[in-house]
Amino acid sequence: MSTVDDVSGPSRLAEPEEGISVEELALAARNHALPLEALRYDVTPTGLHYLLIHYDIPDLDPAQHTLTIDGRVDRPMTVDLAGLRARPRVTRRVTLECAGNGRALLTPRPVSQPWLTEAVGTAEWTGTPLAPLLREAGIDPDAVDVVFTGADHGVERGVEQDYQRGLPVSEALREEILLAYEMNGAPLLPQHGAPLRVVVPGWYGMAHVKWLRRITVLDREFDGYQNAVAYRLRAHPEDPGVPVTRIEPRALVRPPGFPDFMSRARVLRPGPCTVEGRAWSGFAPVTRVEVTTDGGATWSEATLDPGTVPAGSGVDGQAADERWAWRRWRYEWTATPGRHTLGARATDASGRTQPVEQPWNRGGFANNLVQWVVVAVVPEDLPAGR
Amino acid sequence: MSTVDDVSGPSRLAEPEEGISVEELALAARNHALPLEALRYDVTPTGLHYLLIHYDIPDLDPAQHTLTIDGRVDRPMTVDLAGLRARPRVTRRVTLECAGNGRALLTPRPVSQPWLTEAVGTAEWTGTPLAPLLREAGIDPDAVDVVFTGADHGVERGVEQDYQRGLPVSEALREEILLAYEMNGAPLLPQHGAPLRVVVPGWYGMAHVKWLRRITVLDREFDGYQNAVAYRLRAHPEDPGVPVTRIEPRALVRPPGFPDFMSRARVLRPGPCTVEGRAWSGFAPVTRVEVTTDGGATWSEATLDPGTVPAGSGVDGQAADERWAWRRWRYEWTATPGRHTLGARATDASGRTQPVEQPWNRGGFANNLVQWVVVAVVPEDLPAGR
Repeated sequence: MSTVDDVSGPSRLAEPEEGISVEELALAARNHALPLEALRYDVTPTGLHYLLIHYDIPDLDPAQHTLTIDGRVDRPMTVDLAGLRARPRVTRRVTLECAGNGRALLTPRPVSQPWLTEAVGTAEWTGTPLAPLLREAGIDPDAVDVVFTGADHGVERGVEQDYQRGLPVSEALREEILLAYEMNGAPLLPQHGAPLRVVVPGWYGMAHVKWLRRITVLDREFDGYQNAVAYRLRAHPEDPGVPVTRIEPRALVRPPGFPDFMSRARVLRPGPCTVEGRAWSGFAPVTRVEVTTDGGATWSEATLDPGTVPAGSGVDGQAADERWAWRRWRYEWTATPGRHTLGARATDASGRTQPVEQPWNRGGFANNLVQWVVVAVVPEDLPAGR
Repeated sequence: MSTVDDVSGPSRLAEPEEGISVEELALAARNHALPLEALRYDVTPTGLHYLLIHYDIPDLDPAQHTLTIDGRVDRPMTVDLAGLRARPRVTRRVTLECAGNGRALLTPRPVSQPWLTEAVGTAEWTGTPLAPLLREAGIDPDAVDVVFTGADHGVERGVEQDYQRGLPVSEALREEILLAYEMNGAPLLPQHGAPLRVVVPGWYGMAHVKWLRRITVLDREFDGYQNAVAYRLRAHPEDPGVPVTRIEPRALVRPPGFPDFMSRARVLRPGPCTVEGRAWSGFAPVTRVEVTTDGGATWSEATLDPGTVPAGSGVDGQAADERWAWRRWRYEWTATPGRHTLGARATDASGRTQPVEQPWNRGGFANNLVQWVVVAVVPEDLPAGR
């Protein structure tokens, strides 16, 4: 007789010399990253934004789909997509990052979705603000958490579940939070939550519940799997840990030159080279990016592109609010023959920055270790053709 | 001093117990597969189609982009996108599959892009037929191969190159081959070859050159890297091998039930279950799909959906020609409690079918071993919530 134990094991750490397993590879094949050269785009082109889908992409009919708001509210309600589209419409440019970004580079490696450094993307999300809907429903004064339930269903560490995440009521009432039905000017794609998802600017991806069908107000902390078990910073399995919330600052370098197919190592010609990339933080605006071309021995200031003034929400036909989007930076470098290790680190207005020694927790969450890009600067042409 | 040897090593096979390397993982994170639940769609939604990009996605300006046709032709020509869009416009629904699909499941494992079974997708490609352009250019009677050159540049096994593939002139003149500038009714996305690629219905993906900028007619066989070195079926490194060409028949099962997050293993309730999926071949129409629910001990006939009559090319406003698209199949199963191993195998009108013992070659190409989907049929509810 089959039971859940046949398919759903406990979490574990990889052994010291253990390679990536076929199970981890299967997750990587589905849940793809941003190809690093796509850091060139202000808004990530459709299909290049990172994906993290816990179970299967559900098959939902937009014409039949509804959202129910219930729990500790005076006036429970159910709205369909036409009803949501008839409400005020806002577009925001928001950078999303997976809470597990960088996990596969940790030692020891938590065995889960094996991200390297590229689980990020920036999109223009269009929808209607959540807060006015919650106010219309009439949140009870004793409300503590607001639970978002998706239509995706699966089992995880032995617990069968619809994907659900709770958000503190003070966060859920932020004016910036959207119930989004469009991405980059088109209806949401199936893999991004069609027909409806929540967008929580500044928070890691686990909060942006996709395939949203229910919002439930609780008078207590939500103790569902994704809040109480999965997304917590723990030192060891018995540690109750603390919740994963906002995005730690990170800068990524767009690797210069051209790659080797197999190793993705970079080849560059000597001479002037603009090293550039993007930087973001979910806590506060990025105020500084430093660049190293010698593996962290020395650091130099990069130039930050002017950010868009946080001018309030972008109303239809106006520019999208870019307060929560990544910012471009650049650094002029003269590449000399030899091997160089490039990196960048972001600092935000809250004083948070990126470590050069790995932070570690048992889930591999919120890890913003500096990315290293090794470049071989080769003066002569490599052999071309055969 | 750095040289190419620092970044570009020879091909190799993994050791017997060697896990997937970080290099292979980096390729998997970029070059994503079709999530298997997306087999439900006739046309793969944007962003879910598999990707295999040898180097970086180039940054091309559609307004400046041109295609040059030269070599052994009477009237060399250069056309821009407006010129190509002014020519006859055709839409075809075509299934593409990577030649390396299945590689990571081989023993021993060739170390390269580590595909499992899902490197496939189906799109509606719109463009103009290539053959009339070649006839206008006036191909010399001594023409042998037609070489397609992309704008993507990199190094591979020590050879610096723009991605180039040669196609026998008889294939290049097939009326079905398109110079495609749209995919699923929208301009090509950067990762699918924007602004121009070639689509060679029936052939593995390596022939569908993206970011196409030049077509050169040769009076000899093309001996560039991707034809003479990379995409060949070899028994050992010194074997000259034979070229990889058309897509071997394959059926994929859309895994029923719901998954475990980590293992992707399936859980299903007992009772009636429609097992379904897609099947395709680049040699001839699929004529038969058989299904097993006992790991290959017994096989039963699946029902094939009626295919679209190969009614010639789909002209603007008419249905796309579906001759080279996958075909849906289904099989009614009664799931009984316990562990079951599902699989399907396709047979085409040429008599080709799928093996249940692995075929093997040193590059891991054209491998169409039957896919196995393990399902735990569990009667009682698994524990829900905490």
